Amino acid sequence: MPFVYSRTVRFQDTDAAGVVYFANILAMCHEAYEASLAASGINLNAFFCYPRIAIPITHATVDFLRPAFCGDQQKIYVTPKQLKASEFEVEYEMFTVENSGQDIPEIQEICTARAFTKHVCIDSVSRTRSELSVDVMRWLTAWGQTLPPLSADLETLL
Amino acid sequence: MPFVYSRTVRFQDTDAAGVVYFANILAMCHEAYEASLAASGINLNAFFCYPRIAIPITHATVDFLRPAFCGDQQKIYVTPKQLKASEFEVEYEMFTVENSGQDIPEIQEICTARAFTKHVCIDSVSRTRSELSVDVMRWLTAWGQTLPPLSADLETLL
Amino acid sequence: MPFVYSRTVRFQDTDAAGVVYFANILAMCHEAYEASLAASGINLNAFFCYPRIAIPITHATVDFLRPAFCGDQQKIYVTPKQLKASEFEVEYEMFTVENSGQDIPEIQEICTARAFTKHVCIDSVSRTRSELSVDVMRWLTAWGQTLPPLSADLETLL
Amino acid sequence: MPFVYSRTVRFQDTDAAGVVYFANILAMCHEAYEASLAASGINLNAFFCYPRIAIPITHATVDFLRPAFCGDQQKIYVTPKQLKASEFEVEYEMFTVENSGQDIPEIQEICTARAFTKHVCIDSVSRTRSELSVDVMRWLTAWGQTLPPLSADLETLL
Repeated sequence: MPFVYSRTVRFQDTDAAGVVYFANILAMCHEAYEASLAASGINLNAFFCYPRIAIPITHATVDFLRPAFCGDQQKIYVTPKQLKASEFEVEYEMFTVENSGQDIPEIQEICTARAFTKHVCIDSVSRTRSELSVDVMRWLTAWGQTLPPLSADLETLL
Repeated sequence: MPFVYSRTVRFQDTDAAGVVYFANILAMCHEAYEASLAASGINLNAFFCYPRIAIPITHATVDFLRPAFCGDQQKIYVTPKQLKASEFEVEYEMFTVENSGQDIPEIQEICTARAFTKHVCIDSVSRTRSELSVDVMRWLTAWGQTLPPLSADLETLL
Repeated sequence: MPFVYSRTVRFQDTDAAGVVYFANILAMCHEAYEASLAASGINLNAFFCYPRIAIPITHATVDFLRPAFCGDQQKIYVTPKQLKASEFEVEYEMFTVENSGQDIPEIQEICTARAFTKHVCIDSVSRTRSELSVDVMRWLTAWGQTLPPLSADLETLL
Repeated sequence: MPFVYSRTVRFQDTDAAGVVYFANILAMCHEAYEASLAASGINLNAFFCYPRIAIPITHATVDFLRPAFCGDQQKIYVTPKQLKASEFEVEYEMFTVENSGQDIPEIQEICTARAFTKHVCIDSVSRTRSELSVDVMRWLTAWGQTLPPLSADLETLL
């Protein structure tokens, strides 16, 4: 079950073409990622700011499907997935929520963007890959999926 | 009674000094201003994006009292006040909300910034000052204060 | 021959991990793209802001290779390439320029990121694909490559 | 003699009203401030990122005089002025540079904004005010003005 994050498109998110500036879509995804971490009890300041064990983004990809406008109600579905003992990726599906219908109210979710980020866990002192922490594994379990323990072990062996 | 807006400091808000980048404090205030307008039933896209009657900010001032950090819970109090038939200012008081106390939980609000923005209503076609709309007057009444009708009339006379 | 854009990493580009915020890498690429358009004589305001023929980004991908720091001298190589009569992609290679060596000065370029954006030309009134304009074709020729005319014709036929 | 910084308004600087987003004016001023520091030989990463002696902004004020548009050529005049042994302010005057005239080219500078930032020098360990460093005094001398030595001494006495 993915983590669901709701937000409103702010004026600052837009550009002079009247829609959300393309790179801000990725920033919105990161905002949703942060909310999912906080919802698992992770302290954001300790997690992101000069930690001993850092998990920087090594790759990102986005498909822009429809424009988003100032004031739009958004829902972002965040689905993390472990790839290796030291790696995970996060999938983001971004929707605009529209209320239509007059007599019978209808809620419609229109997909505006889909994105992925890949994260690698690194010991910032030794500059080597490091296993994901217990906190991160709990977050993966809560909103997405971890690798079977065996395959994680095998990876270390191979 | 001011409008109260709650938000979390995002990683994107911060800079390499480890705290919120100074100009982002003003962007957070605008975010709270937008939320207060939406709470009064104003459509944000119509209000901000290429309207016939625009209300641009002509002046802003901020006092930075304490740093804010990634993950901080913030409360922003938004108090608008009409200055002329065509003008208003908005006061913003920004607090970090801290939960302290162990047995008896305590909530503490620490003021991190105070800001003002001044807005002038302009007809974008004739490029002249224009009276504030009924919508904006209702917003002023809801969260702050309007001028007494008489003084607004007098201003037009004088 | 790609377009080469030089810039300095600004404090605002960074986050509380002490390096450039990941989504800002894409914004820097767009900044270089804008500079390449302006260098071909394209008016940026007319090009980007509510044009009849718009060329929105439909896809973006980035590899983050090394962190970039406040004050870093950057070079971004911009290489556009036509994909269809109505489509192009842009490749960005971002380097940090370091001056090392004492007696004999040495300049070293270290690759920090590589990105791609894909752009589709659309008539904003009819909402259909539109051929790239003469201006854009001239820009493609200057810094990258266009399709052979034949294949563009064929594409229309097929 | 103030420091003069030239830049182009980028698409990212704008919002859906078609002009530069108000808080970005302050970010542009900071960009010019950084360039003035670098021009005096100050290392930006050491200066801004987790230094022992930090000089945070405690107050900012801006007057927005005219809108600025994507692609505009800007000139920002940066004039620093020492206020106390531990304090300085910076004045920013922002202009759009327009080329008009056909036979005889004419360059016109139109003032779009004026801003001030106030900075206080603090020892980040003892959390007390600290005198401005030799580097900062040299920067003040280069582009603006320092206090007469006597008055700085007096300030300490009083």
